[in-house]
Amino acid sequence: MRNVQQKLAIARGEKPAELFFKNARLVNVLSGEIHPADVAVEDGRVIGFGDYAANTVIDLKGAYLAPSLIDGHFHVESSLLTAPEFARAVVPHGTGAVVIDPHEYANVLGLDGIRYVLESTKNLAVDFFIMLPSCVPATTLETSGARLTADDLKLMISDERIAGVAELMNYPGVFLGMESELAKIEAGKGKAIDGHAPGLRGKNLNAYVLAGVRSDHESTELEEAREKLRLGMHILLREGSTERNLAHLLPLINTHNAGNCSFATDDKLPDDLAHEGHIDHCVRKVIAAGVPPITALQIATINAARHYRLRNFGAVAPRFWADFVVFDDLKNFVARQVYKKGILVAENGKYMAKSPEATHLPRSTMNLRYDATKDFTVRAKGASQIKVIAIIPDQIVTKQLIETPKVEHDEIVADTARDTLKLVVVERHRATGKVGVGFVRGFKLKNGALASSVAHDAHNVVVVGTNDADIICAIQRLEKLQGGLVAVAGGDVKAELGLPIAGLVSDKPLSEVIKHMADLNAAAHALGSDLAAPFMTLSFLSLSPIPELKLTDQGLIDAVHLKQTDLFV
Amino acid sequence: MRNVQQKLAIARGEKPAELFFKNARLVNVLSGEIHPADVAVEDGRVIGFGDYAANTVIDLKGAYLAPSLIDGHFHVESSLLTAPEFARAVVPHGTGAVVIDPHEYANVLGLDGIRYVLESTKNLAVDFFIMLPSCVPATTLETSGARLTADDLKLMISDERIAGVAELMNYPGVFLGMESELAKIEAGKGKAIDGHAPGLRGKNLNAYVLAGVRSDHESTELEEAREKLRLGMHILLREGSTERNLAHLLPLINTHNAGNCSFATDDKLPDDLAHEGHIDHCVRKVIAAGVPPITALQIATINAARHYRLRNFGAVAPRFWADFVVFDDLKNFVARQVYKKGILVAENGKYMAKSPEATHLPRSTMNLRYDATKDFTVRAKGASQIKVIAIIPDQIVTKQLIETPKVEHDEIVADTARDTLKLVVVERHRATGKVGVGFVRGFKLKNGALASSVAHDAHNVVVVGTNDADIICAIQRLEKLQGGLVAVAGGDVKAELGLPIAGLVSDKPLSEVIKHMADLNAAAHALGSDLAAPFMTLSFLSLSPIPELKLTDQGLIDAVHLKQTDLFV
Repeated sequence: MRNVQQKLAIARGEKPAELFFKNARLVNVLSGEIHPADVAVEDGRVIGFGDYAANTVIDLKGAYLAPSLIDGHFHVESSLLTAPEFARAVVPHGTGAVVIDPHEYANVLGLDGIRYVLESTKNLAVDFFIMLPSCVPATTLETSGARLTADDLKLMISDERIAGVAELMNYPGVFLGMESELAKIEAGKGKAIDGHAPGLRGKNLNAYVLAGVRSDHESTELEEAREKLRLGMHILLREGSTERNLAHLLPLINTHNAGNCSFATDDKLPDDLAHEGHIDHCVRKVIAAGVPPITALQIATINAARHYRLRNFGAVAPRFWADFVVFDDLKNFVARQVYKKGILVAENGKYMAKSPEATHLPRSTMNLRYDATKDFTVRAKGASQIKVIAIIPDQIVTKQLIETPKVEHDEIVADTARDTLKLVVVERHRATGKVGVGFVRGFKLKNGALASSVAHDAHNVVVVGTNDADIICAIQRLEKLQGGLVAVAGGDVKAELGLPIAGLVSDKPLSEVIKHMADLNAAAHALGSDLAAPFMTLSFLSLSPIPELKLTDQGLIDAVHLKQTDLFV
Repeated sequence: MRNVQQKLAIARGEKPAELFFKNARLVNVLSGEIHPADVAVEDGRVIGFGDYAANTVIDLKGAYLAPSLIDGHFHVESSLLTAPEFARAVVPHGTGAVVIDPHEYANVLGLDGIRYVLESTKNLAVDFFIMLPSCVPATTLETSGARLTADDLKLMISDERIAGVAELMNYPGVFLGMESELAKIEAGKGKAIDGHAPGLRGKNLNAYVLAGVRSDHESTELEEAREKLRLGMHILLREGSTERNLAHLLPLINTHNAGNCSFATDDKLPDDLAHEGHIDHCVRKVIAAGVPPITALQIATINAARHYRLRNFGAVAPRFWADFVVFDDLKNFVARQVYKKGILVAENGKYMAKSPEATHLPRSTMNLRYDATKDFTVRAKGASQIKVIAIIPDQIVTKQLIETPKVEHDEIVADTARDTLKLVVVERHRATGKVGVGFVRGFKLKNGALASSVAHDAHNVVVVGTNDADIICAIQRLEKLQGGLVAVAGGDVKAELGLPIAGLVSDKPLSEVIKHMADLNAAAHALGSDLAAPFMTLSFLSLSPIPELKLTDQGLIDAVHLKQTDLFV
């Protein structure tokens, strides 16, 4: 232990401490009370409570001092931000640690993606703990950039910042006892094993839990969450950009069981993080709904730290990191100051942490091969009816429609009059030349095209458009950007955001990303769309495990029976 | 995983389970509620809740079903029983697991003692988890049978039944940063680190916690316990045979912090275990005092399981061992049935578990060397005053008195008129020939002698007597018994209990041990003593770290300044 003698001497009061926070009202999540305290800090850690001499004294004048907040489950790629820029977004909201599942990086880059995440998340004003993605690829019905087996997970599991195995989305595989899935659970033995089992109940849920899964963040109904809690699952109360389950699940929480709950955001967009907030938003929401503040802050701190075994995180007491939030109003939690390991990193919403050294970026991942003269053309072949993907606004499930297509020169083309637009997916990891083409209703574009290299879960290029020229223009622009989001019309780029890091994440600062996202949405709306988040909707149209009809690089997918299906009826 | 596919199939309901407990009112310590449940069990584990087919159906008819109880800190040697007989005492009271510190075995036998404990505690109706003793020997002021360093602890720490490092009684050594003590904490990294810090408060307590100590069971005052809880220590609420802190500490517990508390007995005699009870007694006591039953049962089960990381213990849910207590009255918790891994092991107070195979006993430990003709004689040397140890009833601290001795033939002798009896300690581990002789007030024997090979913490032979002949007779009898407790008078053995296992523990059944203990106490009382537990009082007269005046094989000990002191003033 470095300097342990020095720290013990300071704790005993024989030498002055570095820092002394006096006159705090300490939110003590360990003793479950708020009590007056003076807190000494040395070398980034809490040393003790009491009257200490110190080099720097910070008089809190009766303000509340709480441990920094923890997000129990988050995909950092959903913010479109690098880890340092994500920190810029959430640290002013009081976040001190996040447990992330780099599922998207892993689908594109495999273990190299996880290694990049480990590197790029070091020494920031928020600590990152990483769950090893368990479902790469999500299915064999689309072409991903990598494949991870239990043996791959074992290569990395012992790293101290690896907190366990991430959400086992292949829940039938788990409860049916597929050896590949059980081996992933076994690989994480002694660490956390996260679940993902939307709607799973009864005996199959019993089997899922028995197999070793210890958490769930997918409950949308109260009774579903209650059943999971009774079976011993840690319940992550999710409140993200689109999945907002907190209000529904709130009646679950009482002081006898709150210890088995944490907050999570899962997926949250950069402007939502910056403006609505992060875990602080969850804290405000549950306190406003009547949960005792001490319970709300336990859920936001120590509970996740214990479940994921985040050593020395989640409380203010000797040995814990001096990760503090100072705030003034227990009923309306707003971080006034945020400290990371004793250093002031945000004040009044302003981020103050030093920028870290740049991380070496991962290799290029945009490797497309297509023949623009014919790959996107659909010959009518005299067919009378085709399957069309119908978007359901604000949901990731779709419906299958049967339509008579619009045909020109023996080609099936987009029909803006009926809002039947062309949808194209181009494999982009290994230049396989695989291209899927289908049709989609719901975007309401009157002209132009929208394209994205974010397309769950394999993250191929997905494009929706009213004409092939703009579709091709959008794809070419994404290649130039090395991934990203783009809106084009008449051959012109109307708005764009480059995502050169794995085709998933921007290398730009938070404020620019927010601005470009706003521009992209405005451009999509100007082209005719009335979707709230047209690029997010687009990014879910390849997600083959989610019913009912999807499109991947392997073609149209019957996502109910999990098999390819023909465009023509 | 053995049979995992089989268990998953049963959980899915595709095959019948071994056992099905229907119509339970389940005390669900995970969801913090009591709810109706039907519970399927296979291969000793809970498989799931719901309607299952099973080979054997047990209709609980609305009775309560709770997880079996856990003692968070216990010295099994204090029961004077082997592990199987200890199980016979506590299993009918609903105990399913104990976390033990084999401190006494280790002081006598070192690592061999811990290995014996690991062997002799296997496959019983109560599961044993073992903390590695951290203070062997307790001091250098008495001669113990062994010495354990951090390197010794490292040899055993990774065993899955080793839960961590036991109570760090040398708390000044810890907070002052002695390398030997910090190395023991380091040896237990990743496992539990138990504390023992009676009365420690303020900055030195901060340092003790900072060094890595995570629990305490020595708080006797409410504010002391509150301070420790605030600093993040797990609080073991102790209720043993003599140390009874539960009533004092009760106001500490609330539903916001109960998760950081467990019950413990520390030391409890066999008749108290059999008749008053074990952790069930704690549950009854706190419920009677107004603690919600669900909270009381969480403290008695899952809290200790989590703190000590007792995998699959402490709750009723899939994957957990089917360790159940069935009971009928929430306000007066009395175990009607107790199950261990699905097997009925006690019913209506009757123990029903099969006897395990006998364990190979450890080597003989009674190796005495003394000259009966002179070692116990105290020459008066013309001195006018001597130091006398004064017992304080029901406490382990003593006072030092200054007395004019009774002298006969230039020898200082016992003086029954003033209750100044002779006290002798003979080293018994390595036949060093070390003998300490002193005088003690408080036993009130009018004739005869009492002797014990249980003498904390080095467990040499300690004898109190009115005359040398009976003292010698008692020692000789203990040698013959290979350790034990004995009351003699006029050269006759009046009562005895052989403790041939390390000189600490009986090889006899529970009922015989209880009977012999009663006989011993009756004999001591017949000889004149009015102490409630004269042999326990005797066993603490060598405990050199406890003030004020003690006697070891190295002579009279000034236990305030921790040094030898002369009998003569």
